[in-house]
Amino acid sequence: MALPVRTSMKRLLGSIQTCTAAKGLCSAGNGTENKVKCGGRVFSGIQPTGVPHLGNYLGALESWVGLQEGYSSVLYSIVDLHAITMPQEPGQLRDNILNMAATLLACGINPAHSILFQQSQVSEHAELSWILGCLTSMPRLRHLPQWKMKSKDKKEGSVGLFTYPVLQAADILLYRSTHVPVGEDQVQHLELAQDVARIFNKQHGELFPIPQALLSASPRVKSLRDPTSKMSKSDPQSLATVGLSDSPDDIVLKFRKAVTDFTSEVTFDPERRPGVSNLVAIHAAVCGWTVEEAVRSAQGLETAQYKLLVADAVIHKVAPIRVEIARLRGGQRVSGERSDPRRPAGPRSRSTAAG
Amino acid sequence: MALPVRTSMKRLLGSIQTCTAAKGLCSAGNGTENKVKCGGRVFSGIQPTGVPHLGNYLGALESWVGLQEGYSSVLYSIVDLHAITMPQEPGQLRDNILNMAATLLACGINPAHSILFQQSQVSEHAELSWILGCLTSMPRLRHLPQWKMKSKDKKEGSVGLFTYPVLQAADILLYRSTHVPVGEDQVQHLELAQDVARIFNKQHGELFPIPQALLSASPRVKSLRDPTSKMSKSDPQSLATVGLSDSPDDIVLKFRKAVTDFTSEVTFDPERRPGVSNLVAIHAAVCGWTVEEAVRSAQGLETAQYKLLVADAVIHKVAPIRVEIARLRGGQRVSGERSDPRRPAGPRSRSTAAG
Repeated sequence: MALPVRTSMKRLLGSIQTCTAAKGLCSAGNGTENKVKCGGRVFSGIQPTGVPHLGNYLGALESWVGLQEGYSSVLYSIVDLHAITMPQEPGQLRDNILNMAATLLACGINPAHSILFQQSQVSEHAELSWILGCLTSMPRLRHLPQWKMKSKDKKEGSVGLFTYPVLQAADILLYRSTHVPVGEDQVQHLELAQDVARIFNKQHGELFPIPQALLSASPRVKSLRDPTSKMSKSDPQSLATVGLSDSPDDIVLKFRKAVTDFTSEVTFDPERRPGVSNLVAIHAAVCGWTVEEAVRSAQGLETAQYKLLVADAVIHKVAPIRVEIARLRGGQRVSGERSDPRRPAGPRSRSTAAG
Repeated sequence: MALPVRTSMKRLLGSIQTCTAAKGLCSAGNGTENKVKCGGRVFSGIQPTGVPHLGNYLGALESWVGLQEGYSSVLYSIVDLHAITMPQEPGQLRDNILNMAATLLACGINPAHSILFQQSQVSEHAELSWILGCLTSMPRLRHLPQWKMKSKDKKEGSVGLFTYPVLQAADILLYRSTHVPVGEDQVQHLELAQDVARIFNKQHGELFPIPQALLSASPRVKSLRDPTSKMSKSDPQSLATVGLSDSPDDIVLKFRKAVTDFTSEVTFDPERRPGVSNLVAIHAAVCGWTVEEAVRSAQGLETAQYKLLVADAVIHKVAPIRVEIARLRGGQRVSGERSDPRRPAGPRSRSTAAG
């Protein structure tokens, strides 16, 4: 499908039929189980923070790929207007946008089945955001947990950081989206989009379907260095995070150094054995297995051996993506790819946020 | 000049040379005294709140007309994106936009000398507003007096009402404007635009000239019913406000009923005689006189007689505007024109705000 360009956007919007979103009509997950495509429209966005990591891939991008088969209309946006709510170096941001585009294509986002576009190329995101901001009360926005958290971190953020949930609502509603794959931390933002849609519809007639969340069934991948916290791009320990552009050697190194415990047997018990359970969860996810199947595959192996097995499975999954990213980028080194994974990563802005 | 339409806007911006704004290079006032045009660019905006009143005309619009002669590049915008920060009835808003356009043309805004356009037709206002919001801190915005005042009035306004000074900054900076005619109540908002321009320039290179205020030298026209407060469209007393579309009979009635005092002589003493001084100020402004000249013209007249003299002078000024508005609107009755001026006006959103 073609990128929605400015001149065709108004026409595109005009041709979109109002969809009645049937809650729960379509399941989340990878969507491939739906032989008949659902009539709804899926929208999600991802911030251009360089090449995503394994947690982003298993938690969101893999299901994005599957949703292309499950829905008749799918839009994915690289949300650069959200990225600038934090300070950015312009050259780096431009590079990150290209890297994210290459990564999404390499992961399997297929322009024949979905529309992949850069948010700032479509003026209507900012325009609708202004309109929706006029329908959103200040207290409604102030009580969103992300602002409370972020404004505490930085004492006082920018107006953009404060109002970005309104832009997210515009991102979704602009296309009359019916389904939005989101992480749990974004559910309250989707609720804002639902509320604003209701307020608009009440005042001006039924224009927007109320968008429904597609909560990912995938596990939350944890840090390899601290399995009690999420895998994160901003982790100062470079060994904690597996990037999609990591070389096989880097991946082996990171899994070899993964924090586990002193029991050599492989079991799945996230409460008491978070480290090894994280390995099992990753293993199951990259192989498309249940955790039980993953544990069974580890019978007779010690943790140290199992780490290499998981590393191999991850390499098997990630290597084709890495090769394709490099091909799309014309052999350029992509951001996030480090020659020495022991070098700590620099500070980063907030990681990818769907919706 | 042609309206700046979406497709030509980027080209327009590309061709604009960065202007170095020389503070005080061009005087405010009606600008006609400048035989040689200044090289700067003037921008101002007015909300579409129906047909303006005499206070808007003498305080802002008359000088807008004059500035066309004083500057080589002049842009005036009907800022409908600002209007929707308060609840609007869509049909009424559309009508108000047309009425405002007709009024500006009738007052002498000449498309051969300036660009007159509707803000929402140019996507880049909302887009730049988003970008500038990412450079504006929350406390900076929260401390602007207008928000403090308005949020007190309504306890808590919308996000749009809170962020509209950022949109104003975008309105101005989008065209690399160098001079902005503003009322005193808008000076702090212009300072925000200046600050944001400096922040942007510091981070990304000198793109925006720092826009300078053109403070109007015109008097603040007071209510005819309460000469201690500003003439205002939202005044519940319809006799308080002279609209540009008022009929001669209405104007005579309103001046006849104007509140003065028990001294019959005409003098100019705003502190002790606000009512009669307001009449003198209006008289001087519509005739292009000093207040001394206006007082001299009233020698031998009692206040009651002077009221009719002032009404005549106002009719002389306003009648051609009224006729031209009606002609441009094709004989339609324009909003703000009331058959019975004694009928109280309905509640109104905030009045026109330059910039």
